[in-house]
Amino acid sequence: MNEKLIERLEEKYERMVEIRRYLHQNPELSFQETETAAYIARFYEDKSVEVKTGVGGNGIRVTIDSGRPGRTLALRADFDALPIQETTGLPFASKNEGVMHACGHDAHTAYMMLLAETLIELKDEWKGRVVIIHQHAEETPPGGAIQMIEDGVLDGVDNVLGAHVMSNMETGKVLYREEEAQTGRAYFKLRIKGSGGHGSSPHLANDPIVAGAHFVSEVQTIISRRLNPFEAGVVTIGSFDGKGQFNIIKDEVTLEGDVRAMGDDTKQVIEKEIRRISGGLEETFGVVNELEYKDDYPVLYNDPELTAKIAASIREAGMPEIASVERCGPQPPSEDFAYYTKELPSCFIYIGAAPEGEVYPHHHPKFNIDERSMLIAAQAIGSAALSYLME
Amino acid sequence: MNEKLIERLEEKYERMVEIRRYLHQNPELSFQETETAAYIARFYEDKSVEVKTGVGGNGIRVTIDSGRPGRTLALRADFDALPIQETTGLPFASKNEGVMHACGHDAHTAYMMLLAETLIELKDEWKGRVVIIHQHAEETPPGGAIQMIEDGVLDGVDNVLGAHVMSNMETGKVLYREEEAQTGRAYFKLRIKGSGGHGSSPHLANDPIVAGAHFVSEVQTIISRRLNPFEAGVVTIGSFDGKGQFNIIKDEVTLEGDVRAMGDDTKQVIEKEIRRISGGLEETFGVVNELEYKDDYPVLYNDPELTAKIAASIREAGMPEIASVERCGPQPPSEDFAYYTKELPSCFIYIGAAPEGEVYPHHHPKFNIDERSMLIAAQAIGSAALSYLME
Amino acid sequence: MNEKLIERLEEKYERMVEIRRYLHQNPELSFQETETAAYIARFYEDKSVEVKTGVGGNGIRVTIDSGRPGRTLALRADFDALPIQETTGLPFASKNEGVMHACGHDAHTAYMMLLAETLIELKDEWKGRVVIIHQHAEETPPGGAIQMIEDGVLDGVDNVLGAHVMSNMETGKVLYREEEAQTGRAYFKLRIKGSGGHGSSPHLANDPIVAGAHFVSEVQTIISRRLNPFEAGVVTIGSFDGKGQFNIIKDEVTLEGDVRAMGDDTKQVIEKEIRRISGGLEETFGVVNELEYKDDYPVLYNDPELTAKIAASIREAGMPEIASVERCGPQPPSEDFAYYTKELPSCFIYIGAAPEGEVYPHHHPKFNIDERSMLIAAQAIGSAALSYLME
Amino acid sequence: MNEKLIERLEEKYERMVEIRRYLHQNPELSFQETETAAYIARFYEDKSVEVKTGVGGNGIRVTIDSGRPGRTLALRADFDALPIQETTGLPFASKNEGVMHACGHDAHTAYMMLLAETLIELKDEWKGRVVIIHQHAEETPPGGAIQMIEDGVLDGVDNVLGAHVMSNMETGKVLYREEEAQTGRAYFKLRIKGSGGHGSSPHLANDPIVAGAHFVSEVQTIISRRLNPFEAGVVTIGSFDGKGQFNIIKDEVTLEGDVRAMGDDTKQVIEKEIRRISGGLEETFGVVNELEYKDDYPVLYNDPELTAKIAASIREAGMPEIASVERCGPQPPSEDFAYYTKELPSCFIYIGAAPEGEVYPHHHPKFNIDERSMLIAAQAIGSAALSYLME
Repeated sequence: MNEKLIERLEEKYERMVEIRRYLHQNPELSFQETETAAYIARFYEDKSVEVKTGVGGNGIRVTIDSGRPGRTLALRADFDALPIQETTGLPFASKNEGVMHACGHDAHTAYMMLLAETLIELKDEWKGRVVIIHQHAEETPPGGAIQMIEDGVLDGVDNVLGAHVMSNMETGKVLYREEEAQTGRAYFKLRIKGSGGHGSSPHLANDPIVAGAHFVSEVQTIISRRLNPFEAGVVTIGSFDGKGQFNIIKDEVTLEGDVRAMGDDTKQVIEKEIRRISGGLEETFGVVNELEYKDDYPVLYNDPELTAKIAASIREAGMPEIASVERCGPQPPSEDFAYYTKELPSCFIYIGAAPEGEVYPHHHPKFNIDERSMLIAAQAIGSAALSYLME
Repeated sequence: MNEKLIERLEEKYERMVEIRRYLHQNPELSFQETETAAYIARFYEDKSVEVKTGVGGNGIRVTIDSGRPGRTLALRADFDALPIQETTGLPFASKNEGVMHACGHDAHTAYMMLLAETLIELKDEWKGRVVIIHQHAEETPPGGAIQMIEDGVLDGVDNVLGAHVMSNMETGKVLYREEEAQTGRAYFKLRIKGSGGHGSSPHLANDPIVAGAHFVSEVQTIISRRLNPFEAGVVTIGSFDGKGQFNIIKDEVTLEGDVRAMGDDTKQVIEKEIRRISGGLEETFGVVNELEYKDDYPVLYNDPELTAKIAASIREAGMPEIASVERCGPQPPSEDFAYYTKELPSCFIYIGAAPEGEVYPHHHPKFNIDERSMLIAAQAIGSAALSYLME
Repeated sequence: MNEKLIERLEEKYERMVEIRRYLHQNPELSFQETETAAYIARFYEDKSVEVKTGVGGNGIRVTIDSGRPGRTLALRADFDALPIQETTGLPFASKNEGVMHACGHDAHTAYMMLLAETLIELKDEWKGRVVIIHQHAEETPPGGAIQMIEDGVLDGVDNVLGAHVMSNMETGKVLYREEEAQTGRAYFKLRIKGSGGHGSSPHLANDPIVAGAHFVSEVQTIISRRLNPFEAGVVTIGSFDGKGQFNIIKDEVTLEGDVRAMGDDTKQVIEKEIRRISGGLEETFGVVNELEYKDDYPVLYNDPELTAKIAASIREAGMPEIASVERCGPQPPSEDFAYYTKELPSCFIYIGAAPEGEVYPHHHPKFNIDERSMLIAAQAIGSAALSYLME
Repeated sequence: MNEKLIERLEEKYERMVEIRRYLHQNPELSFQETETAAYIARFYEDKSVEVKTGVGGNGIRVTIDSGRPGRTLALRADFDALPIQETTGLPFASKNEGVMHACGHDAHTAYMMLLAETLIELKDEWKGRVVIIHQHAEETPPGGAIQMIEDGVLDGVDNVLGAHVMSNMETGKVLYREEEAQTGRAYFKLRIKGSGGHGSSPHLANDPIVAGAHFVSEVQTIISRRLNPFEAGVVTIGSFDGKGQFNIIKDEVTLEGDVRAMGDDTKQVIEKEIRRISGGLEETFGVVNELEYKDDYPVLYNDPELTAKIAASIREAGMPEIASVERCGPQPPSEDFAYYTKELPSCFIYIGAAPEGEVYPHHHPKFNIDERSMLIAAQAIGSAALSYLME
């Protein structure tokens, strides 16, 4: 039966490419992806499935019921794009100024639509239910996942499975990692208010640049002294907005930072310490701080047992397009699939998608993928789903 | 004879005000003050003096020769304005968008023109020569003084005398300070080049914000540990231009700073240490720095003997407008009169000019003065000049 | 046959305790443990084994040859003690002033001697060879392992197996970890030479305390910005020797630090950065540094395949004393067994040894263990060895 | 009459030397100088003066009354020594182990005793009263001055005059400075309590060395950013007591510092900021601080009018031993004569005392002076006193 699935998907590959290119030409930003949602919904119109649109925003839930008792597996694909001006020069490049599918969500959606179609066609050959989660707004906090979960997308679901095409991993490889796999993150913005004055009379002012510089140094000690050395954590202050006149002491400066951690405990330690350091700074330098701290995506935790089974089932299916199924290291980026992993035992895998020629990282204006990775994703996830449902 | 001078100046006070207001309405930026220069030159056209225009740029040298042997005293008044949009609401406010006489150079020029006229009228009553230096470009480095000196404005001059109206000093007071009176200064710009990357992977980048923060901290030690505690020095980093994405490590940041010192030795220590710290930063953090360091106005040094005599002669002249002649503290701002003090024993004094009502500091869009300060300046400088010449 | 081993060891348990207590009363410091070595050597005198003493110092190699072809497995136990004054109050407490077996090496040696005796007794029932490594000087760099290796202790050996009793792990548990299991480490000493003077005249001196403080801050950035967040690394500056007169600027200060990392690459990054920061400090602060940097124990790397087999064989042997065999987290301390793991695929496991009542950490003057852990160690290692040899 | 004084003092020079050498051989530490006090008191036994011993401790007040109405001038000389082991090799070197007159107080006492004797002898030739203040404990806070003042030593006194021999000023010169002349000072001790632990697990401890290092950096900003650049201030952290094991995180460290300022306002700013920074450190790093802050000697302020008169009178006396009377710069050391200057218009001058050959600074084990400076001090102070009394 897996063989049938594999064949059918191969037959649908050209349509997959067509759909991906259509989506690539028509990207929409997170939380604004209404046309894309309508396009996806239309695809299911003539199919015997239950389609629920507007789930937690622009999300869509498609339920494929085999009619036979069994478990319910959700398969998730995201469909939002990024505020990037594409410079790939591809014939199907973005038609929307300043918006681009620079992370492969077009490919996720294309492979998932045709995988769903195939599963519908083969409905008589498997048990239980498949829930397709077409998710909006992965890129921008608070993210679509948390909204769709709140709106019930996981009702009745036992487990969730997802995949990401990766331009920096070799095409033909499928990769996985049990337990903590992608970092959780937080954002903060610190406004340090001193008091301005002339550069020649510092004692009549209160220099926020000096206070800000000490904040930057102090924050380093969170990573170096407060975290368990075996727990990954990062604080990057990406923005120190203190441009001014060389000879005028500024009234205030604003710093913005990015927090990453591979453990929710670690995230909490970092938040507590940043708040503490901000408070200490006020006393030490006599400044007044406004600290905005937004905890967003949690750590993506792959259930080890489920992940081992998914990996094994893909490996054992022996698909010709898949050269290997390997364990990989932890991934620095954050991903809002993590919210599903907090709700249910779930698994998120990586599909090698490095194109021929030069490889650009995700979120780059020249980002591109090997389109065969879509077929691989469909076959890997489809085959894993069937194995799961028939177990 | 001093009495005649004092009377004559009083009679000319209304014309002083007129000229000042005309100049106030027609301000010109440093190095662009051609109309002002032409206006001043026209004033001397029908007078029996030697006028040399275009001295070191827009500067004017007017020589008044008594025909009798004696010393030569230069009197200096500056005439440039500032890039400030005036908001005083005065009837004679600036007509030039974004340009304003916000430092009183209009008053300096007005009093000096009528003082020159008076000295010409009284030429038979004194000895030696007076050189009037109408100087352009005091506000902007490299400044007009250095240019006029290079172009020979001090040829044959024995001493230089100057005055500044001060909105923050009480009208009626004349103030002076022997020896170091106003700071010298320098400007620097430090471009710190690290290497950019994603906030979640600091080890693949080299964060210039962290390096810049340490530079700010290290620079503090110049003032706290390298300078003689009895020597005044300041380093202000007025600009830390490091605005960016919160989660992206920047490629580079640029810092700009202001150096002040009340001693040329101190200035040299500061320059040497900033260069050293920049070099150390490169090694410590593996960044590449571009340091631009521009030493400009030197310390303004008032010859103590000359200054004591000038102060005494003003005090003893007993002019009714002058309530007191007092020693004052050192002044944080820099002033390019300092270049004259490096060439010849010179003296620069302060004329209280606080207006009625609210007082705004120099360089403020609402800066204003008590116009009587012009009369006081003319009488003080004029009287001191006569005493000097007749000594 | 495993059962025979298990029974025999149980029968020898009282002698194990006797030997351990004898060693506990007679501890010797690293590199000075000649009496202990002699005691161990005597034990083998009447046994049909090849004993080589003085291996790389005080080390002993005992070869037990089954006479049948097969692999050669080395079993290592260390026998040195620590410079600690024991305060346990035990009847068999240390008789040597200021020296104590505060890390369980007495237990390691005791169990290993009786395990060796048992393996000799059962020599007809297994294949290949067992090499017992009685190692001196584990506690003090450069450590005995590197010396014994240089002196050929691993000649002909295929794999090395070792165990550590752990007072902070529950008695009855056997724990293991594949791949990186214990940190590598380095030591550094930084002498910062400024120039002394009176506290009231910092400009005539060069304050090494200020330079040292900046060094401490800068070092934090190695961990926070230079290391891969997924790689563990620590730099602790445990000593800042800058005691002096409150009002005298010191000539110099000395800092000493400890480096830990769970990867030899990470260790190299840390060393390179500490050298760089020391160099930068010289330039920034005009001090002269002497940096002594000693890299010692590498990362302890357990061969994943061997470790999985060892763990499985212990688990499957179903020994009554062993409640569970579990994977554990990485261990912060360093261990010179790591040198064996660099030479051959090796495995180092942990034997729970928490005593009844209060538990004191290793290296504590009241450190103690549950002596049953010795029996467990002997049975676990012995059983694993037999499974290995018979495979 | 001044001439008589000058002659008499010259005649007494050999006795001055004798007394000084006797005192030099018999130095006593601050607050323990009972023998010295007794020696001084005996000197006055047969003289017709009022002697009060035990003033505020070991201090002595000697009142010489001319019997004629007039002002009362106090002349102060200190007599304590320092905890220094003398290494001059002089024939009259200290006989007291570890105690030395290394600051010239022996010379002060010797000249003052013979000046007092001379003034007694010439009592008929002047008016008013002279109060000789033989002060103990100048070197060690709280200092003898404050104690003697509390005990009434200034009762009835109009002004106080003092002098210090200076090994770093040319013999033959008398120097003075109006207004702020010597710094005020304070002492602080900061105990930073973190929590100890093993170097490999910083997150289980709280490292006080890292907190202490940040304190050192932060304190630099007091001088660089909080003080008026024209006001002298210094904070030296002379002691950073953080010696420990390289691989053990300490429980606590102790820092000690010295504060100097040329203005009591500046001292207050520094104290406030150190307290603030200590408080901020607690919050930033989660440590607990104990801050001991002891304000001691105030700024020594020479009354400008009195000082000008004293300087003029010495200059005009035209004494052959005195080559010049000059204004000097501010002096970094603190001096408890400052307490007198806070009570009454006072004046403290400097007597050049550089010996032939190599010059060692005050408080050096090889400190020495040109003994002729004693005669100069006696003549300068004596002459100034007579001029003052006869005015």
